[in-house]
Amino acid sequence: MITLPASPLEELPVERDPAKKFSSLSALFEPKSVAVIGASDDPSRIGGRPLQYLKRAGFAGAVYPVNPNRSTVQGLAAYPDVAAIPFPVDVAIIALPAEQVVTAIEACARKGVKAAIIFSAGFAETGPEGAARQAAIASLGRQSGMRVLGPNCLGAFNSGLGFFGTFSQAFDKDTPEPGPIAIASQSGACGSHLVYLFRQRNVGLNYWITTGNETDVDVAECMLWLAQSPKVKVIVAYAEAIRDGATFIHALETARRNGKAVVMIKVGRSNAGGLAAASHTGALVGRDDVYDAVMRQYGVYRADSIQQLVDTACACAHGIFPADRSLGIITLSGGLGIQAADAAERYQLDVRPLNPAGQAQIKALISFAGTANPIDVTAQVVNDPELTGKCIDVALSEGGYQSLICLFSSVPAVTRLGDPILQALIRLRVRFPERLIVLSLAAPIEVVRRYEAAGFLVFEDCDCAIAAISALAGFAESFAAAAGDGAVSAPPSADKPLPDRRLPAVLDEHAAKALLAAAGIPVLPEKIVHDGPGARQAAAEMGCPVVLKIVSPDITHKTEVGGVILNVQTPLDAELEATALLDRIAKLVPGARLTGVLVSPMCKAGIETICGIFTDPVFGPVVMFGLGGIHVEVLRDVAFRLAPFDESEARSMISEIRGYRLLEGVRGAPPADIDVLARALVRLSDFALAYRGLVNEVDINPFVVLPRGQGAYALDALIVGPGAPASFSQ
Amino acid sequence: MITLPASPLEELPVERDPAKKFSSLSALFEPKSVAVIGASDDPSRIGGRPLQYLKRAGFAGAVYPVNPNRSTVQGLAAYPDVAAIPFPVDVAIIALPAEQVVTAIEACARKGVKAAIIFSAGFAETGPEGAARQAAIASLGRQSGMRVLGPNCLGAFNSGLGFFGTFSQAFDKDTPEPGPIAIASQSGACGSHLVYLFRQRNVGLNYWITTGNETDVDVAECMLWLAQSPKVKVIVAYAEAIRDGATFIHALETARRNGKAVVMIKVGRSNAGGLAAASHTGALVGRDDVYDAVMRQYGVYRADSIQQLVDTACACAHGIFPADRSLGIITLSGGLGIQAADAAERYQLDVRPLNPAGQAQIKALISFAGTANPIDVTAQVVNDPELTGKCIDVALSEGGYQSLICLFSSVPAVTRLGDPILQALIRLRVRFPERLIVLSLAAPIEVVRRYEAAGFLVFEDCDCAIAAISALAGFAESFAAAAGDGAVSAPPSADKPLPDRRLPAVLDEHAAKALLAAAGIPVLPEKIVHDGPGARQAAAEMGCPVVLKIVSPDITHKTEVGGVILNVQTPLDAELEATALLDRIAKLVPGARLTGVLVSPMCKAGIETICGIFTDPVFGPVVMFGLGGIHVEVLRDVAFRLAPFDESEARSMISEIRGYRLLEGVRGAPPADIDVLARALVRLSDFALAYRGLVNEVDINPFVVLPRGQGAYALDALIVGPGAPASFSQ
Repeated sequence: MITLPASPLEELPVERDPAKKFSSLSALFEPKSVAVIGASDDPSRIGGRPLQYLKRAGFAGAVYPVNPNRSTVQGLAAYPDVAAIPFPVDVAIIALPAEQVVTAIEACARKGVKAAIIFSAGFAETGPEGAARQAAIASLGRQSGMRVLGPNCLGAFNSGLGFFGTFSQAFDKDTPEPGPIAIASQSGACGSHLVYLFRQRNVGLNYWITTGNETDVDVAECMLWLAQSPKVKVIVAYAEAIRDGATFIHALETARRNGKAVVMIKVGRSNAGGLAAASHTGALVGRDDVYDAVMRQYGVYRADSIQQLVDTACACAHGIFPADRSLGIITLSGGLGIQAADAAERYQLDVRPLNPAGQAQIKALISFAGTANPIDVTAQVVNDPELTGKCIDVALSEGGYQSLICLFSSVPAVTRLGDPILQALIRLRVRFPERLIVLSLAAPIEVVRRYEAAGFLVFEDCDCAIAAISALAGFAESFAAAAGDGAVSAPPSADKPLPDRRLPAVLDEHAAKALLAAAGIPVLPEKIVHDGPGARQAAAEMGCPVVLKIVSPDITHKTEVGGVILNVQTPLDAELEATALLDRIAKLVPGARLTGVLVSPMCKAGIETICGIFTDPVFGPVVMFGLGGIHVEVLRDVAFRLAPFDESEARSMISEIRGYRLLEGVRGAPPADIDVLARALVRLSDFALAYRGLVNEVDINPFVVLPRGQGAYALDALIVGPGAPASFSQ
Repeated sequence: MITLPASPLEELPVERDPAKKFSSLSALFEPKSVAVIGASDDPSRIGGRPLQYLKRAGFAGAVYPVNPNRSTVQGLAAYPDVAAIPFPVDVAIIALPAEQVVTAIEACARKGVKAAIIFSAGFAETGPEGAARQAAIASLGRQSGMRVLGPNCLGAFNSGLGFFGTFSQAFDKDTPEPGPIAIASQSGACGSHLVYLFRQRNVGLNYWITTGNETDVDVAECMLWLAQSPKVKVIVAYAEAIRDGATFIHALETARRNGKAVVMIKVGRSNAGGLAAASHTGALVGRDDVYDAVMRQYGVYRADSIQQLVDTACACAHGIFPADRSLGIITLSGGLGIQAADAAERYQLDVRPLNPAGQAQIKALISFAGTANPIDVTAQVVNDPELTGKCIDVALSEGGYQSLICLFSSVPAVTRLGDPILQALIRLRVRFPERLIVLSLAAPIEVVRRYEAAGFLVFEDCDCAIAAISALAGFAESFAAAAGDGAVSAPPSADKPLPDRRLPAVLDEHAAKALLAAAGIPVLPEKIVHDGPGARQAAAEMGCPVVLKIVSPDITHKTEVGGVILNVQTPLDAELEATALLDRIAKLVPGARLTGVLVSPMCKAGIETICGIFTDPVFGPVVMFGLGGIHVEVLRDVAFRLAPFDESEARSMISEIRGYRLLEGVRGAPPADIDVLARALVRLSDFALAYRGLVNEVDINPFVVLPRGQGAYALDALIVGPGAPASFSQ
């Protein structure tokens, strides 16, 4: 059934040059000429819809219907095949049954078409036969340099050009107006659903791309292209999986450097199938945790629901990102105010009190007002709507809140009250152009539109409004961070040279710690000795108490064989204990090669943490951090970051775990040396990058953090090379 | 300025007879006659609105405007004062300036008015003068038996009677239709906002009560009244605080016994001011944690936002509570299906696979369908909409899902597709009347209304839909639990007689454990001895190893003075150690009275937990449970329940903490004896109730739980009487 090209050309490598990839996508999303292969005269059919849409939207370029049975299609001159088109074709839309697609794609490739959009289903999603067809298409694309969107996708649009290369029913009634938002969605259905919702919200869309089976163009590459488009302010993405972690990261970095907000749904949170198995730390991680960490690290707003996605995207489209997390709350009712304050705390906003001067001014305006924050202007404003504007003015000028939420309930629905409030707000909008002013109100849509048109973000639900404010503040922080050092992927710390990128033959505890020490991870002094007298001398040199540990490539679980002796008090004890230890282990594990006994000073008491590295199949080396004991494995209280990262990111990682309060010092305990811990995590991330491919997993357990000023030390470490089996240290 | 009654009558006790309280509220919410004091001829004024609304809604009873300056008001005969009304008055609405209210209330009391609704502001919310006015009103109400709603409230309505005793602008355009929902809201603004939102959702309201300053009638009492009203199916409540914990609990129990869902916002989550200070366990608890526990325990859905509140209430009004948590997902797109599955996991629903027979049937209908669950009917249904109904039929009959969600995106907006789908759904509605069928779709409101009218719950957002399904399943569980043993507040366990309700004079560790042991909390054998030989004999009797602890009413922190000696191996060692211990402590803490040395067997290793009791100012004795170490104090991983409760509630409490997995057994460790732990918590809750008022705080730390079958033991305990200072044990 599958028509493969008669003489398949040799496979070419995938294009890796970013500039070429970018320009090749430009042909797809900004075409000058479009052929519709399988064009139908019936505008409701799959092959008819794109023609209908292109005509209705006034596509500026050329449109060439291809249909062997007709000379015109929907009033346009038709061609029997793509080869017969006498002009160059940027985009060919393929609306044919699956079994005709490979032939059509081959014809397009021969014609020199720059990009194809394949609507047809019946490929990899249906089984081996379809997968073979899809592979044939991919191969033809690579050979010819023709980019392929789909198959099994709903196509794409560029509303500014009037280019609607799609058969989605979402455009049945009309096509979207251009606007600040772009959508890249793997799922066509979700993409169409989003079009509907953004239209309901009256927010325009510039680009819309559905990627379907992603045999070539994927969501990440689309995001990267959109991140470079000056017309796009907000990127809305929907993905079931990311195929190319590096392009995804590049897209996120580009977006935030260009001040574009990325709002994304990545489904599959509940899919436990993606566990990075066979690794101590990795085994704890559904890959979804890594997605989560990556998105947090690169400033993406990850939405859990379509409503959150649309709310947040619309808020970003509004274009004001508040400079800090301060929030003023203006309310007509005490109860609504408390609710907003609750929500503000939930979403990490700072409801700080109005200053005394401001409070006095509010009091002078409304004697029974709540003046602190929330500012409760009371039902008094029903009698004198002008008061609302005056109170907001005080909050903005005296309180200095970067964001303000006004809880108006259904009052604006009453024209007598709503009109003066709106007029007052408009004056304030001019005076405070950079402040984010959000209204929570319930009113007919035409009233809502008037407030929106005047430059305000409007939400019916207060909780959604405050969630959106928090998201905007988060984007402001992310943009500022990107503007600071230019990139999250900071180069490895300069104050510590990178270690030689070589692994010793044996990676026992001593070798592992030496490697990490060379990379700047603090370890205590230690020495391998081979007998009792050696231990005595080492103990005398480093000072007692010391710890003795058996070292053997054949013994991973040292404590299980009694191979660790803590708190040895004198050099003489060290000699006796070391002799006994070597003797005991030799008898207990007869075949084991005994490298010797590791002598090191006994570490002071501190907080035991676990620091580690594992390799995510999509994103590569990931650093993890958590408290020791049951916290990582049982309580899953663990934080992740993609390597490399800087100290501020390390601090955010440390503070992310629930047990952070323990590090801050509780019950009179001193705070832990978080500075040293953060630097160690940065070094570990540098190490992860330097040894990418050579080291699959690092497990520093425990990494003991002493009180502030006293440092932190890796007391045990395990390094696993690629392909090595996972195991526990100690 | 305050007109107090000339001869204040003596204070009467607050009415505590439930039947009388109920009937007195009936007069307020189901009046036969209403006087409006301060009636205005202008229907837009505060004193004019209730008349306007009563007339428009066709109130069946008598209406008496009171206005000394007019003979008619809005066409009704007016009276110069309430005394002049020649008929009995059930409800008097007071729409007067604050300073005239006390006189008016006095007149109402003399007239024998059954209940007053006071709109006026200017009372306790404004300062001491207002507070005095409010106290005078409260006093008059108590003296006369007249119930008072407000002051500073928006009034109440009973839509079935056409009784609209309110001046809220929410009824400017129309008054709500009767329906299954009742609202009790402390805040008038929130109450009005809710009216607006339920009208938008097209869901009717039977009762609406705003309680304002709550000088007499409060939200809890209204909820209790509504819980007994046959017309009410769903109680929506909004409170800033609960004044009377017992009535609140009684209301919740009554509601769930009567199969009425309670959906509630209790604001003030972020208010750290309500800490039950001065108590070890209590100090960890913002009172909000207790509210949270109480609501969970009594099956209330606690909403965080107005949207959640309204979504959930509308879902409950629909009236189908699914018999279990199974959920079938029908989707037109794979992506939407995965999203729904993610959300289902988040909301604890069971997305179990369709059985093989069902999967085969789906496959036969649509060859490329996803058949497991989510059931992806693919875009194929766009070509053949009838297929959707057939697939749903298979899911319901073969899959047996008690709930089904259909992800229709914007397809129903297309009439050609939507109509056959709706017809198929209607047939299924008849065949499966008890299944919950929820649709997630984006379509114009008139389309949504058609689906709703056909008996389906419709949500635009899939996440909101699934949250609602989970809430409904939760109510089903709560109703079933209430139907089971009849009440959550189970009587104290019958198999263990209650201890004498007497406290010993000294509550040292030994006495505390004896008291708890008598109440059925397992403790190890222990003996107080007074010297070395005594310790030796005790150790010999109970078997070594033993633990020795100093006992002194003057030493609370035993470990800090070296007053605990663990793991004493022989009776002789016990003698030596006990002698040395008494000697050492006598020197170290010279003035301390030494009761003796406590000898008990060394407990086997187990999981250390903390069990305790503290007294919440609103709800009384609360039992807490958490893991030992940093888990309770630092990680706040702790569960609460109002005492008393039964074993199943204790199990739910235990499983609620994040560290629960540790008790289940991890890393090859055996599961802990959760049976014994649960029984101990029940006993502790019985003890809390029995000693209510006598004991303020109990702190069992540690309560060590051994592996299953081996029991659990209180190793140390502290009991604090009322007024005693809080302290740590050990």
